[in-house]
Amino acid sequence: MRKIDVLDKGYVRLVDVMGGDLSVVNSARVSYDKESFEIDEKDEKLIRFLAKHDHSSPFRHSILQFEMYAPLMVARQHWKYIVGSDHRDPFTAWNESSRRYITENAVFYVPSPTEWRSAPENSKQGSGKPVNKHLGLHLTEDLMKLIDMGTMMYERAMANGVCAEQARLFLPAYGLYVRYYWTGSLQSVAHFINQRLADDAQKEIQEYAKAVYELAKEDFPVSLDELVKTTKDAIAS
Amino acid sequence: MRKIDVLDKGYVRLVDVMGGDLSVVNSARVSYDKESFEIDEKDEKLIRFLAKHDHSSPFRHSILQFEMYAPLMVARQHWKYIVGSDHRDPFTAWNESSRRYITENAVFYVPSPTEWRSAPENSKQGSGKPVNKHLGLHLTEDLMKLIDMGTMMYERAMANGVCAEQARLFLPAYGLYVRYYWTGSLQSVAHFINQRLADDAQKEIQEYAKAVYELAKEDFPVSLDELVKTTKDAIAS
Amino acid sequence: MRKIDVLDKGYVRLVDVMGGDLSVVNSARVSYDKESFEIDEKDEKLIRFLAKHDHSSPFRHSILQFEMYAPLMVARQHWKYIVGSDHRDPFTAWNESSRRYITENAVFYVPSPTEWRSAPENSKQGSGKPVNKHLGLHLTEDLMKLIDMGTMMYERAMANGVCAEQARLFLPAYGLYVRYYWTGSLQSVAHFINQRLADDAQKEIQEYAKAVYELAKEDFPVSLDELVKTTKDAIAS
Amino acid sequence: MRKIDVLDKGYVRLVDVMGGDLSVVNSARVSYDKESFEIDEKDEKLIRFLAKHDHSSPFRHSILQFEMYAPLMVARQHWKYIVGSDHRDPFTAWNESSRRYITENAVFYVPSPTEWRSAPENSKQGSGKPVNKHLGLHLTEDLMKLIDMGTMMYERAMANGVCAEQARLFLPAYGLYVRYYWTGSLQSVAHFINQRLADDAQKEIQEYAKAVYELAKEDFPVSLDELVKTTKDAIAS
Repeated sequence: MRKIDVLDKGYVRLVDVMGGDLSVVNSARVSYDKESFEIDEKDEKLIRFLAKHDHSSPFRHSILQFEMYAPLMVARQHWKYIVGSDHRDPFTAWNESSRRYITENAVFYVPSPTEWRSAPENSKQGSGKPVNKHLGLHLTEDLMKLIDMGTMMYERAMANGVCAEQARLFLPAYGLYVRYYWTGSLQSVAHFINQRLADDAQKEIQEYAKAVYELAKEDFPVSLDELVKTTKDAIAS
Repeated sequence: MRKIDVLDKGYVRLVDVMGGDLSVVNSARVSYDKESFEIDEKDEKLIRFLAKHDHSSPFRHSILQFEMYAPLMVARQHWKYIVGSDHRDPFTAWNESSRRYITENAVFYVPSPTEWRSAPENSKQGSGKPVNKHLGLHLTEDLMKLIDMGTMMYERAMANGVCAEQARLFLPAYGLYVRYYWTGSLQSVAHFINQRLADDAQKEIQEYAKAVYELAKEDFPVSLDELVKTTKDAIAS
Repeated sequence: MRKIDVLDKGYVRLVDVMGGDLSVVNSARVSYDKESFEIDEKDEKLIRFLAKHDHSSPFRHSILQFEMYAPLMVARQHWKYIVGSDHRDPFTAWNESSRRYITENAVFYVPSPTEWRSAPENSKQGSGKPVNKHLGLHLTEDLMKLIDMGTMMYERAMANGVCAEQARLFLPAYGLYVRYYWTGSLQSVAHFINQRLADDAQKEIQEYAKAVYELAKEDFPVSLDELVKTTKDAIAS
Repeated sequence: MRKIDVLDKGYVRLVDVMGGDLSVVNSARVSYDKESFEIDEKDEKLIRFLAKHDHSSPFRHSILQFEMYAPLMVARQHWKYIVGSDHRDPFTAWNESSRRYITENAVFYVPSPTEWRSAPENSKQGSGKPVNKHLGLHLTEDLMKLIDMGTMMYERAMANGVCAEQARLFLPAYGLYVRYYWTGSLQSVAHFINQRLADDAQKEIQEYAKAVYELAKEDFPVSLDELVKTTKDAIAS
């Protein structure tokens, strides 16, 4: 099983895959009634051509399925990207746990004292350098205190018979872990990686994008390489 | 301007509309190169036929645009419906404020003491009767206390230079109001109304669905009537 | 290789599959962090529940890929269904040969003398009983004559240096065979089967829908059974 | 009524519009709870910024509806673009006449003797210079002869009671005019224009793209200008 741990308690797991570099090549050649059974140099050249010239439909016949366990603020960003994305590929399915009927223990993302970041200097979004250690210590303590208080109130409400859909108002939800299945085409997965590895993406979602990239590249060494070219260089540096 | 207040601080506003019952009729008749300029009985009969037999494409040439101001838990459900909906119509655009870069004051949904509901008796989701008044009083007080504490910690973090994307971890986000533009086809709007006026939908989102219905029906008296038939009966009763 | 011949020269081939009945079950249970490894009665009951109550998102995590070789009029109807379908699921990819640059020999669908059908008695679309044998003979001869003439003019134009995108005007295109890759979710495949096995669907596309159904049911015996229930009864009878 | 004639018998008609440059600006500013009522220089600068940096969601809240009358080969390409487009925006509705039940007279696109083009010199698709006049004369005559023969056979089959869905096999369909309604977001319309005004697009569809551009730019002078920048320069030259 291919699974990578992310943040303090999250993970990404590759559940299933359909296709590979060969499927990309064969989809592109359907017009010519030609099929390859092993990938060769000419096939690799075709993949590079397709990626470079934005002929993306052959990349939509390969599919990846992931299980994600991530804080709600990451899940929402991931999701927002799917709904409102600039180059939207709708080839995506999504199934997610909901606190409307899930009553298992709430689990939260809590940055450690050294993981808090300052506001960036020249931008309205994103983050800059780590804050000083002393402040970090206070922030982690504050967050744990708030989570304790919220969780206590949540559990008291539930014990008193309040419906789950209202009781959840007591949970500091941005850090709350949710579990979801995400099935997308290779194009859609590459697009997620490209957008969420960018410097101005939230640091926490960058960690998930890296894990998705690691898990996906084994089955699509040539195609993924081409589709996330620029971003890959940024990771390397 | 057509705008309806919802919950303690929210609203729905109809920003723009394209088409009307007549557009539905004319889209359906494009095959026959016929166009109506005023709606008559024969046209109404056609609309009823289309709705009854699920010929929905003519309902996708009419568009409505709303501005919504709703707690995050409502916005997410609204959104989830769009991504994972059973009869998904992708004819939808979405633009939403984000706490990654918005630093205006956080505003929260706080149920009044009589608005808290108990867990339903025979279902895993939804809600039942109101809780007793005494408990309701405690819950509202608890929630206000938690919001005060979270907001105070959030503002302290921001004042100390922490990036907004992490500082928001202190906000009890399920009740946090967000503002978004939602543009959808008449079919998509009718589907939202049908699903979110259902008995097992969260009470808070039912309020938004009612407002959307009130605002939309003026321009589509015949079509909307047919598309949300069963649900409408439920409202009336 | 799983491949079924259809009409005089066409076929459907199952190229690849991701998932199975088990994936449907596990996608639906992601909320509860439970995973099955072998399907049991409880799982089958869950699948029946999901199909009956239109909880379709778990059916979108399973994917099938087909190669189709079909007359253009079938391909267009198949395609139209994808673009304008009533219960549209956008989880679909498509790659098709184009006569704008393909110059291989044109191949045509020609009904045999006994395969021509009369207009239906009480409907604007669809077809009724076979026409009489004598008329059928004339129709097949006529069509072959027209195809010969069109093909000859097409080839002459190409030989004289006319661009392929205009030369194709000489081809009687509704019967022209095209080859395409179609990748869709299990929900999308079931929807195609349901719509195109219906009595009022064109007879020729019904043949393709039957082949798709035969090829798909091996991997999804329980799910596909539920999703195309009514239609299946119609086939049996 | 805004309508532009295209090719020998076709046209594009702008049926309806929702929004304008102002809607783009207001959708983008929903986060900040600001609304403009008249467009100024700062707004234009924002539109340029959004277009340049591919922040496309604000362009999906403005909608245009067209009626198109075009040869089937143009309609199919238009449609293919919607299904398999590289930067697919699914914000699109489509209603089209079908020869399965339409029995009005078949009308065909016939290039005049000077409108036939040669194959391009260095490319597999597209077209080059006009063919010589003598050849053009022959081609037009050939096509008219084929259309006459096909139409005669089609009408005879219909008169003899053959179903429309099979009788259409006699029509040289690539040039057959079809009528359809197309509703798309401003982003989707701009994408169509960009792809179909390109040099390697089929000449006939370029004519339709130009007409769409002419009709759309009146309501979106700033936005459309930005979204089709490069292509516009090409037209001018």
